[in-house]
Amino acid sequence: MILAVDIGGTNFSLALGTPDGRILKRTTGSTDRSGGAAWMMERVLEVGRRLIASSPKVVSACGISFGGPVDFASQRIVNSTHVAGWDNMAIPETIQRDLGIPAVVDNDANAGALGELTFGAGKGCRHLIYYNIGTGIGGGIIIDGEIYRGANGNAGELGHVPVLPDGPLCDCGNRGCLEALCSGTAIGRRGKEAVRTQPGRGGGIRQAAGGPITAKAVFDAARTRDGLALELVDETCRYLGMGVAAAMNALAPEAIVIGGSVAKAGRVLFKPLREQADRFLMPVHRPHLRILPARLKGNSGLLGAVALAAASGAAD
Amino acid sequence: MILAVDIGGTNFSLALGTPDGRILKRTTGSTDRSGGAAWMMERVLEVGRRLIASSPKVVSACGISFGGPVDFASQRIVNSTHVAGWDNMAIPETIQRDLGIPAVVDNDANAGALGELTFGAGKGCRHLIYYNIGTGIGGGIIIDGEIYRGANGNAGELGHVPVLPDGPLCDCGNRGCLEALCSGTAIGRRGKEAVRTQPGRGGGIRQAAGGPITAKAVFDAARTRDGLALELVDETCRYLGMGVAAAMNALAPEAIVIGGSVAKAGRVLFKPLREQADRFLMPVHRPHLRILPARLKGNSGLLGAVALAAASGAAD
Repeated sequence: MILAVDIGGTNFSLALGTPDGRILKRTTGSTDRSGGAAWMMERVLEVGRRLIASSPKVVSACGISFGGPVDFASQRIVNSTHVAGWDNMAIPETIQRDLGIPAVVDNDANAGALGELTFGAGKGCRHLIYYNIGTGIGGGIIIDGEIYRGANGNAGELGHVPVLPDGPLCDCGNRGCLEALCSGTAIGRRGKEAVRTQPGRGGGIRQAAGGPITAKAVFDAARTRDGLALELVDETCRYLGMGVAAAMNALAPEAIVIGGSVAKAGRVLFKPLREQADRFLMPVHRPHLRILPARLKGNSGLLGAVALAAASGAAD
Repeated sequence: MILAVDIGGTNFSLALGTPDGRILKRTTGSTDRSGGAAWMMERVLEVGRRLIASSPKVVSACGISFGGPVDFASQRIVNSTHVAGWDNMAIPETIQRDLGIPAVVDNDANAGALGELTFGAGKGCRHLIYYNIGTGIGGGIIIDGEIYRGANGNAGELGHVPVLPDGPLCDCGNRGCLEALCSGTAIGRRGKEAVRTQPGRGGGIRQAAGGPITAKAVFDAARTRDGLALELVDETCRYLGMGVAAAMNALAPEAIVIGGSVAKAGRVLFKPLREQADRFLMPVHRPHLRILPARLKGNSGLLGAVALAAASGAAD
């Protein structure tokens, strides 16, 4: 049995997971941002201890999916301006000390990629590309069945492909990254801006939103064939298609799996995305293009953590 | 001793190469395009036979760098509209039959990447990205010391990153690929167009060209601080920088090596390219950016062929 931990900016979850991908006894809570890392670690240890005590089988390892930059080699959270209080934290060390089981941590996109490869849409693939499109855009590259980390440990940053040289400012400090145009946050922001500048055409999106305009409202309105929303989705898919085609031309994976909150939009996103990616793809790659929605959905982080612990050998 | 063969659209070369990267008895000739593949294969076999007979040591294998698409798995030239007459040719099979030594073929960008890794600027790297910027833009990705081919064998097409959604038409059929803006051909074409539309500013480039305007003329004029040429080089480096940054963010190699005729421009290309790539790169990757000119220059194809034969085990 594996203790799976998923720490995000909004929610955190813990569960017991089996090596074949079943999730048992899941506990989810809201992240108290003001409480910071110390509060969160206390909660994780407390719930973890309870889960281990209640497990029907021996819990031999812990996997952690973390919603922020992780230095995998040192098993520490990266000094980050986005995730306050976590700088340089060695979560696995703390868990090993307090719960007595080996632990391994990676960022949520890498964990998600491994989860989809092991239990989800990418089952059976050797080479896989995973996008986690939510607040930001994370990427995970699987080569020969393993997370590819590159020479400096930071490979897989597929959300920061530049797709528009003088485009909007990205959280990474650059302009025109895929993330700055196509993350859930960015789609919501572009939706808001479009409704503001074209108020006569914004009714569908406003109605779908029923409050602040989000990416979900844009996709919901597009599903009703709202003109402005369809334009926004088309533009989104054009940029995403550029990114996907660049990744496919370079890496020729068996599949490209897309997860995260934006992937929940379903067909209204995936259909135009497939068309745009195809348009930007080299002809030789076209017959091989497979863009799949992630299958693990809400359990992506937890099952990623299970796969991570299993892959790292921590569960042996 | 290895028989090295480099077949390009303009020239072809054969030589003997040692496993430690020395080139002996090089023979170069002009490719007779009208003669097609049959003529070329006759020449290759004839020169190859002569080189083997004159070799001071036993020639145990042959490596071939081919300037066009190769299906590595089947060891055949891809059915291609660019390289007439070569469709589906199994060059290694012919060489093995006629010269009695095992042979292996790959496209020039993959061979070049392997050559730079083994004998050139990328020596000692585990992960490397190679761009061959000449008539087109070829790419080779080295992961863990080996050419990465992906699931369908066509990985590494870094020249076909889309960098300008509605940009110029590319030979691959798409618009706005890196190759369509930054290959030698494309830089020459953009230079010609700039001189035509801004004749008052075109004197420097025209003078540097002394005839038809080429990429070389644009770089030569930029070296004399010609305003129009510098604008063209800056634009070129902006697009190349986008492509390099995308590849670096995704793959985090130890080095990015740039070869081919355009790389001969030297500092006038590499300085602004480093600046632009840096600009588009995620901060976490910046300290690791190393863009290096290829070292093997004119022997890139032959030494790539030597490295290919050695890596494939054909030389054992």
